[in-house]
Amino acid sequence: MLKKLAFFILLTMVFNCKNENVSKENLTHNSSKEDYTQYVNPFIGTSKMGHVFPGATAPFGMVQLSPQTNFEVMHKEDGSYNSETYEYCAGYQYRDSTIIGFAHTNFSGTGHSDLGDFLVMPTTGDLVLDPLETYDGDKGFYSTFSHDNEEASAGYYKVDLDTYNIKAELTASERVGFHQYTFPKSDNAHVILDMVYNVYHHDNKNVWTFIRVENDTLVTGYRQTKGWARTKKVFFAMQFSKPFKSYGHKKYDEIKYDGFYKRFKQDENFPEMAGKDIRAYFNFDTKEDEKINIKFALSPVSTAGAMKNLKAEIPHWDFNKIKEETKEKWNKELSKIEAETLTEDDKITFYTAMYHTNLSPILYEDVDGQYRGLDQNIHQSDGFTNYTIFSLWDTYRALHPLFNITQPKRNNDMIKSMLAHHDESVHNMLPIWSHYANENWCMIGYHATSVIADAMAKNVGDFNYERALLASVNTANVSYFDGLGDYIDYKYVPDDLSHSSVSKTLEYAYNDWCIAQMAKQVGDASAEKEFMKRSEYYNNVYDPKIGYMRPKLSDGTFRKNFDPMDTHGQGFIEGNAWNYGLYVPQNIDKMVTMMGGKERFTQRLDSLFTMNIDEKYIAKHEDITRDGIIGNYVHGNEPGHHIPYLYNWTGHPEKTQSRVRMIMDTMYGSTVEGLCGNDDAGQMSAWYIFSSLGFYPVTPGSPDYALGSPLVKEAKIHLDNGKTLTIKANNQSKENVYVQSVSINGKKLENNLLSHQDIMKGGELIFEMSNQPKQ
Amino acid sequence: MLKKLAFFILLTMVFNCKNENVSKENLTHNSSKEDYTQYVNPFIGTSKMGHVFPGATAPFGMVQLSPQTNFEVMHKEDGSYNSETYEYCAGYQYRDSTIIGFAHTNFSGTGHSDLGDFLVMPTTGDLVLDPLETYDGDKGFYSTFSHDNEEASAGYYKVDLDTYNIKAELTASERVGFHQYTFPKSDNAHVILDMVYNVYHHDNKNVWTFIRVENDTLVTGYRQTKGWARTKKVFFAMQFSKPFKSYGHKKYDEIKYDGFYKRFKQDENFPEMAGKDIRAYFNFDTKEDEKINIKFALSPVSTAGAMKNLKAEIPHWDFNKIKEETKEKWNKELSKIEAETLTEDDKITFYTAMYHTNLSPILYEDVDGQYRGLDQNIHQSDGFTNYTIFSLWDTYRALHPLFNITQPKRNNDMIKSMLAHHDESVHNMLPIWSHYANENWCMIGYHATSVIADAMAKNVGDFNYERALLASVNTANVSYFDGLGDYIDYKYVPDDLSHSSVSKTLEYAYNDWCIAQMAKQVGDASAEKEFMKRSEYYNNVYDPKIGYMRPKLSDGTFRKNFDPMDTHGQGFIEGNAWNYGLYVPQNIDKMVTMMGGKERFTQRLDSLFTMNIDEKYIAKHEDITRDGIIGNYVHGNEPGHHIPYLYNWTGHPEKTQSRVRMIMDTMYGSTVEGLCGNDDAGQMSAWYIFSSLGFYPVTPGSPDYALGSPLVKEAKIHLDNGKTLTIKANNQSKENVYVQSVSINGKKLENNLLSHQDIMKGGELIFEMSNQPKQ
Repeated sequence: MLKKLAFFILLTMVFNCKNENVSKENLTHNSSKEDYTQYVNPFIGTSKMGHVFPGATAPFGMVQLSPQTNFEVMHKEDGSYNSETYEYCAGYQYRDSTIIGFAHTNFSGTGHSDLGDFLVMPTTGDLVLDPLETYDGDKGFYSTFSHDNEEASAGYYKVDLDTYNIKAELTASERVGFHQYTFPKSDNAHVILDMVYNVYHHDNKNVWTFIRVENDTLVTGYRQTKGWARTKKVFFAMQFSKPFKSYGHKKYDEIKYDGFYKRFKQDENFPEMAGKDIRAYFNFDTKEDEKINIKFALSPVSTAGAMKNLKAEIPHWDFNKIKEETKEKWNKELSKIEAETLTEDDKITFYTAMYHTNLSPILYEDVDGQYRGLDQNIHQSDGFTNYTIFSLWDTYRALHPLFNITQPKRNNDMIKSMLAHHDESVHNMLPIWSHYANENWCMIGYHATSVIADAMAKNVGDFNYERALLASVNTANVSYFDGLGDYIDYKYVPDDLSHSSVSKTLEYAYNDWCIAQMAKQVGDASAEKEFMKRSEYYNNVYDPKIGYMRPKLSDGTFRKNFDPMDTHGQGFIEGNAWNYGLYVPQNIDKMVTMMGGKERFTQRLDSLFTMNIDEKYIAKHEDITRDGIIGNYVHGNEPGHHIPYLYNWTGHPEKTQSRVRMIMDTMYGSTVEGLCGNDDAGQMSAWYIFSSLGFYPVTPGSPDYALGSPLVKEAKIHLDNGKTLTIKANNQSKENVYVQSVSINGKKLENNLLSHQDIMKGGELIFEMSNQPKQ
Repeated sequence: MLKKLAFFILLTMVFNCKNENVSKENLTHNSSKEDYTQYVNPFIGTSKMGHVFPGATAPFGMVQLSPQTNFEVMHKEDGSYNSETYEYCAGYQYRDSTIIGFAHTNFSGTGHSDLGDFLVMPTTGDLVLDPLETYDGDKGFYSTFSHDNEEASAGYYKVDLDTYNIKAELTASERVGFHQYTFPKSDNAHVILDMVYNVYHHDNKNVWTFIRVENDTLVTGYRQTKGWARTKKVFFAMQFSKPFKSYGHKKYDEIKYDGFYKRFKQDENFPEMAGKDIRAYFNFDTKEDEKINIKFALSPVSTAGAMKNLKAEIPHWDFNKIKEETKEKWNKELSKIEAETLTEDDKITFYTAMYHTNLSPILYEDVDGQYRGLDQNIHQSDGFTNYTIFSLWDTYRALHPLFNITQPKRNNDMIKSMLAHHDESVHNMLPIWSHYANENWCMIGYHATSVIADAMAKNVGDFNYERALLASVNTANVSYFDGLGDYIDYKYVPDDLSHSSVSKTLEYAYNDWCIAQMAKQVGDASAEKEFMKRSEYYNNVYDPKIGYMRPKLSDGTFRKNFDPMDTHGQGFIEGNAWNYGLYVPQNIDKMVTMMGGKERFTQRLDSLFTMNIDEKYIAKHEDITRDGIIGNYVHGNEPGHHIPYLYNWTGHPEKTQSRVRMIMDTMYGSTVEGLCGNDDAGQMSAWYIFSSLGFYPVTPGSPDYALGSPLVKEAKIHLDNGKTLTIKANNQSKENVYVQSVSINGKKLENNLLSHQDIMKGGELIFEMSNQPKQ
């Protein structure tokens, strides 16, 4: 459960500090509108399992430049897994007191990590090139820091590096990180460029690194890693505001080269460095309070691409200008929903959630539209902007549906990026979990089909529907993919042939329904029929004798040893039959009937939220922690995110209403512990935004939202079509969680559903609230 | 010394076989001209230290597709260096009886290796994926073969793989290797694509490999290695004439990936493979005598580039068509010099030498002109064709000068490629020893300046002279390069600061003279003066007291411990004071005077060629073997290649004449042992071509050649300007090695010099030969 007591004083201080700035800025930049960035606190969720980072980034920026705190290695010296590793998914844990540098790529809230490219660290004194500990056991180049001297806002991060008496400030445009280091007087100041560091690892993901010192202020290079993205390459161009007086590097791997290249000294002031694991350094003399700025551009294509990005996005050295411009970009995104909340804390939670829904997928192309494709060839984005980081098992649920309201143009580009991915895929598949021109195959299903079907159902975007259907059908027929061939043959995934057999069957069936919806829109009756048929395969893993979804073997019998509470090895992934088994979003009425009708289903939901779950069922899973659990319902992970809304289908919408308000109150908050589980690239936050507004996309691919209970008092959604939908919760209070009636533009909504079409018309959506369920 | 006894029977057989083909082809393709490919024997030099390969390639082709014979590893299990390694520089040793496959890149004759990319091997029976020995100690996938069933000609190679009863045939266009495998009947036939194999190594040069099975006949991918070229990437597209029935791969490295990509089976029939060390296989059913063809295209840019090359160069499946076309390409290059020799053996030696001078530098760009630059960015060749493999310490001597006669257009492109290299170089340096978008820094000097100066002196090409001068001056001033800063400061390379100090001083001084010649042509008097001054620095390492070039320390004194016979650690590299110390090509007269005048110098040369050299001075150097030595003169290595011609400057041209004829007779031949040392990318062969024609470029950068004694009876050089120079050696015989007089178009040549200008005019160059020196 959320611990709201912590960090209050600190946050008050930080926000006070920020508010002062805001006032001044309002006068110059944003006089007509409220500054919503004042409600963003990037530290929310940086403690424990939120997996978000506090660093600086532009909305959906390729550069996400953030401090990396002092975590050592994924595997301990004895080879065992370090259980703390998972907490460091975004490189930062709030409890830490040391920083080892600032890395230019970070996932926001994902369930695994792979990034942390190009760690930059300014130091003074004797040069130390090891981050944690030197070979002789001396202190590494990390610095201590205090949260008292740390500050983070949308697009800006600041910290005092106490060990070196250096003030570090970061901001970023989409493709360029902008560092500002204020040094003390020193004739021995350094900027370290650590090409070894990775999130989770200090030394074992690199395939190759390459650095060129183009001149005394410009450095280029790239890194290739073999992590989650099996063949990942990121290129950079790094420009200093002041010439370095000397430089060098140290090679940490033990690779021996052939030939004679070592014939002359190449470790100092030799402008070409390469190897598996190298760390470079650049030396300076600094005056007291002298600022050294660094512009650090990334490219998925080449160092030439990084140079283009650098020149195009930040052609000057005005740090504050970029900081302000990026803040404005954030304000533009945040102000798409102008929310009035009951408390300041709620407003902070709301806008920080908004912030977190604008961090990924990220832009993944150079300013000229060139990007690296899944085939590792360089492509030109034609008629779209290319994005990457598709954590689709998470984000199809609410993040992409939210984009259909707040970011329709970007969602259109993201779908086009997925279609390009399909075309570049040797499998002819849409992305599963893809990042940086690689498919990492994480989690199950082919949920890109949901994102596409949802956009089609809501008439978002101008992507080609036939092409999208074909790509979806191709994807749904790749027989060697993760039990899919067996699913097609057996009409379910046999548990003896594939792990997570029930979860896969349920999600494939839902994805197939999505494809059927596309086929219907396109007018392909044959495909519609085929995939509607497949969408009913969930039936085949339901065991009416016990009333649960249950693993079935290839011989047609249900598996004998079966524990519906266990989240491990019971045919589900990151869930159990109790919570994951309630997954038939494409036909909730039928599921309710199948499972014994409305009353029994209501009781089952009640039990789910209130039962006591044994510790042994929790301890096994890093994605399921006590913080994110209500009974046997897991809000800290995704597969149950639709469940609180299912009461709407059992005749008890008031239970949905109280439950979602309870979840918003207890599973989210405005402190560093404000996320009860991985934000999962924005899905957790998107759930909060939708629920705060009073509705939720229980079935992406359908144009309808399930109504819940709004948290806001009022919210204006500024739609892309120029219209505004104003949501009003009359008689709103913390206690008044029950909805008496809902109307849109005077039309009463009767069946707990709100259509996307109605939202798009703008106008007023009015909830009448009460502290009693509607009679 | 050359052993002419060996292999006579075999060669007779091979050539008989080829001559049959030739007769038929003459009727269809080449009826008006002689087929000079009949005199090319790619096996010449494949024994011991020639370092050439017998495989199939087009002239200057990017694909040089050749069998790799069974050599295990560079380092033995105990970590010690395997002394046989060096012999396998081109992957093939004639004495071997087993072949492990056919690799698509091979250096020709170089002094080190790095290639052997993409080993393809057809097999039958149980699949074996280890080349030499399986984990269980069983036989690897290699096959035995017999030279009786092996055949090689210009652009074609054939061998019977006895172990599998498969006939393997290879041909190639510039960018595409073309395989033809004739299988026995089998329901278990395979084509192995070994991404692990490297020349010299089976397992430790790879950085990363990547394979995509695009469909059941098309495979793409790339390999990145960290060998001599520190960051080398080669991309491929591999097309089969027949669909494979199944495929898979095995990963040999122990790299563990993070994430969940292994959740489903990916080692069989999964079309995406990646890792450090992988071997893929493709399975077929074959009928008796069924042919399976493979087109294998390379690209320095991308798999998309390889696909472009594949489609553009071989759009069909007609193996014989490509074989014939490539043969015609060879004939075109070979027939640029139509030579009549005293013996058939000499003709074979001559045309095989011609062949060897057309193997590198190689084309290094896609059909659309895209290539990978030294900066690892992709560039478009603009107004030139890009080449790579610049073994310049070797090839500036005679190969590039020969190109100025036989390949002026290509040499112009090569110089433009060097200038592009300079522009892409972070050092602003011309290539030293460069290949595949990397500088490997092998050997000494900056001899690209010699290649440029020679072309300028001979008015070859249309490259920009000012740009070439600037690039040369930049190169000559990179202070951190290999003692160059000290050379500039001290006016010699101090022996206590840099190894090979005398060799470097001598070669830098010669290179500086080359730059001065360019400056003169461009009209930059200041640069001319500066570099003429530097060109005299050879003076500073001559010790008149002992009469030798001698290492000098930074304090200005000569090194005390000094052995002018030793080739190791005496201030010279791959040579000693006796032979390498005679290197002042820019001012031979002065050197002769300095070393005691003409008579003393003559005596010194006589001694050099006749002295007995102790075994201890030879054993140390892999580039200096008994086979290539005459006294203390080393023809098997480069630094003395000009020495036989120095008698021209001592009043004893007759000694040059007899000596060069003796060298041609004893150091070259038409058998597999026909090269007395590394062919060094064609330098050794270029020496032979020049000397056979009766002249040699002793001082590249000057327009003059030193006259020698022709081996040919007559030769027609078809010049690029449309003119023909006919060289006639009247009264020529094996004994008549002495030149009585030489005239060109009736003008008598008096000073043992022939000018390039005179050659370019065409006409007749007539040598009057005798068995007695001219009185």
